[in-house]
Amino acid sequence: MTVAKEDVRALAQAAREASRALAIASTEQKDAALRAMARHLRKAAPTLLAANAEDVAAARTAGKNAAFLDRLLLDTGRLESMARAVEAVADLKDPVGEVTETWKRPNGLKVAKVRLPLGVVLMIYESRPNVTSDAAALCLKSGNAVLLRGGSESARSNQAIAEALSAGLQEAGLPAHSVQVVPAGERESLLELLKLEGLIDLCIPRGGEGLIRFVAENARIPVVKHYQGVCHVYVHEAADLDMATRITVNAKASRPGVCNAAECLLVDRGVAEQFLPEVGRALVDKKVELRGCPTTVAVLTRAGVPVTPATEGDYGHEFLDLILAVRVVKDLDAALGHIARYGSEHTEAIVTEDEGVAGRFTREVTASGVMWNASTRFNDGGELGLGAEIGISTSRLHAFGPMGLRELTSQKYVVHGKGQVR
Amino acid sequence: MTVAKEDVRALAQAAREASRALAIASTEQKDAALRAMARHLRKAAPTLLAANAEDVAAARTAGKNAAFLDRLLLDTGRLESMARAVEAVADLKDPVGEVTETWKRPNGLKVAKVRLPLGVVLMIYESRPNVTSDAAALCLKSGNAVLLRGGSESARSNQAIAEALSAGLQEAGLPAHSVQVVPAGERESLLELLKLEGLIDLCIPRGGEGLIRFVAENARIPVVKHYQGVCHVYVHEAADLDMATRITVNAKASRPGVCNAAECLLVDRGVAEQFLPEVGRALVDKKVELRGCPTTVAVLTRAGVPVTPATEGDYGHEFLDLILAVRVVKDLDAALGHIARYGSEHTEAIVTEDEGVAGRFTREVTASGVMWNASTRFNDGGELGLGAEIGISTSRLHAFGPMGLRELTSQKYVVHGKGQVR
Repeated sequence: MTVAKEDVRALAQAAREASRALAIASTEQKDAALRAMARHLRKAAPTLLAANAEDVAAARTAGKNAAFLDRLLLDTGRLESMARAVEAVADLKDPVGEVTETWKRPNGLKVAKVRLPLGVVLMIYESRPNVTSDAAALCLKSGNAVLLRGGSESARSNQAIAEALSAGLQEAGLPAHSVQVVPAGERESLLELLKLEGLIDLCIPRGGEGLIRFVAENARIPVVKHYQGVCHVYVHEAADLDMATRITVNAKASRPGVCNAAECLLVDRGVAEQFLPEVGRALVDKKVELRGCPTTVAVLTRAGVPVTPATEGDYGHEFLDLILAVRVVKDLDAALGHIARYGSEHTEAIVTEDEGVAGRFTREVTASGVMWNASTRFNDGGELGLGAEIGISTSRLHAFGPMGLRELTSQKYVVHGKGQVR
Repeated sequence: MTVAKEDVRALAQAAREASRALAIASTEQKDAALRAMARHLRKAAPTLLAANAEDVAAARTAGKNAAFLDRLLLDTGRLESMARAVEAVADLKDPVGEVTETWKRPNGLKVAKVRLPLGVVLMIYESRPNVTSDAAALCLKSGNAVLLRGGSESARSNQAIAEALSAGLQEAGLPAHSVQVVPAGERESLLELLKLEGLIDLCIPRGGEGLIRFVAENARIPVVKHYQGVCHVYVHEAADLDMATRITVNAKASRPGVCNAAECLLVDRGVAEQFLPEVGRALVDKKVELRGCPTTVAVLTRAGVPVTPATEGDYGHEFLDLILAVRVVKDLDAALGHIARYGSEHTEAIVTEDEGVAGRFTREVTASGVMWNASTRFNDGGELGLGAEIGISTSRLHAFGPMGLRELTSQKYVVHGKGQVR
């Protein structure tokens, strides 16, 4: 599908207009729209599953692997989950209009900070069709219009989902252009979108490194990156070692393909001899391949735990797989140095019973989530209690870490006076 | 002065390294550095004023006008104000480490949101040398390294100021590279800086439209724009008309050259006949030139108040001068429509005694500052109580409106558990 420059601009202009109506829509109206969107998703099941089946067949013909096909696939169960996720957003608190702070000035002016929507959000993602409805619901509730640009492999599914969502929006009296799917598959139309400064207020790219680099290098619109997670678990010498094993195994093996999974284990020299065999066996039981520094290799080999030597490229690498780099460090400072050099500012964990050490770690580590005696896997919007997330930002600007409804808003100063002048 | 690409990158890399030390510097250390910086500014007065005199002489030779030369000029009084402003930042609360929120999850995890610095800030500005020390102080206190790129006309002054600031930093044991002046005057070196994604975390351009457009069109690093203020005062039919006159005159005439000055007055039809002659006379007394819609022209002409017809180009225009566009509108909706079309999302004011109308106005207007019965001139960091500001953002992302110390920080999630896993 070829999309002319003018068409891309027209989509964004329609979104901008819709955003004006959305910004002042009441909570009741937005929630009614979300519930209607969920109803229409269920109602459109036959059309939607047929469109998805075409996408899956085309991807299979194109030789995509099983993991890819699984991410792309919709069935009645997954469709129902999508509809429920949309309804769950209706149950979340509306961030728009929330007064986050108030104060009074010596001259009597009353100042309030009040949340307002960002405007128009451009969401760029890959092949999971559920992102289409999840992102649409979160943007709608936060009063933002959204342009959804999914992967070309899920184009038919996304179009069918967007049609169902638009039907719900119109039923509730909100602009159909509040949610629009941008035709996927061409870098030209994406390039055009990325240049629409003044029409698009925020771009959220979610996906592989190539996609994010492309967006970062070409965007003239504000981008909040959802980049890789090179997360570490640091086991300090004053750690409860059983706890450290549980946390390490969970951080690495509970879901290795996600960004908050651990990719590297750092172990204090003082406890390496005791801890490494214990955690090594637990990890190998979970089919984790270990790549260790020379000390790690020596200790594990003596203990009969399989391990290969780590190369420099194994540090700072996001495996997204059952592979873990392991390094023995001298102390807290060495651990902090390793993390500053190799971490991606996503999630970092320390296991220790020493409060002072934990204090330094949580203060000095720059990462969106810093965990003390908890798994890296908790750096997630749902787990932290944000309700739902549109992604996890690895940029410090605007939002750092899981982005929920609030992170899709800005704040304005509302000032109430009695005629004050300067 | 020609700066090679590699040199620009080296400056940014030095800033990045300095930012790591600054991020964990104590409040005491940062405040000691600020006080030392102020001392060194005073001590360097002879060198500094000599450098400034060269800048002023060169600018005069280049034919710059009196207003420009005045902005560029430093004297002992202005230098003392700069030193005091740096000391005043030492007295502000350190935002780094501030816990903004805490909560507990059902699984027992304790979550805190904690402020951390953004990293490296690039400040791009024009000819006022005081911005150099103001921005350096605010960035330092918020734990950020800063690259200062001022106008070429103030290059000698800025370099001398930066040297004094660096001496203060070193005296307090903080990296001298925390504050660096980037050689000005070439678009190539600016272009290079704007591409240093990953090394610079935030770019703040402050200046004319041309500069801001250039930055917005070329930056691959995050930009928070400090763009124009096309601010309106809307006098509703239920306004206290004496208050409305006071606010309008103050908003327009107290300092017409700043971004929170009013550029357009909107008057409800129901009070136009009574209000326009009154406010018109008060404005003309302050030497304000009025450009009105046909109704305004008719009413003012009958009342003997000088007025010329407004052209379409007068609406949405930032005069930064003693000129005011005036338009009579049908009602609140017409006023909201005008502001949505012509406003720049900077500051908008309503004068009314009707709380319901004020509620709709403050809710529905998208602007960083929305004033009810107060002058637009209050949308300012000092006036709102932020202590000091690095500028006024007109972008909704990250910070909207005056940016103080807090707006130079991000927040991370710090999670404390007892071994929880997912």
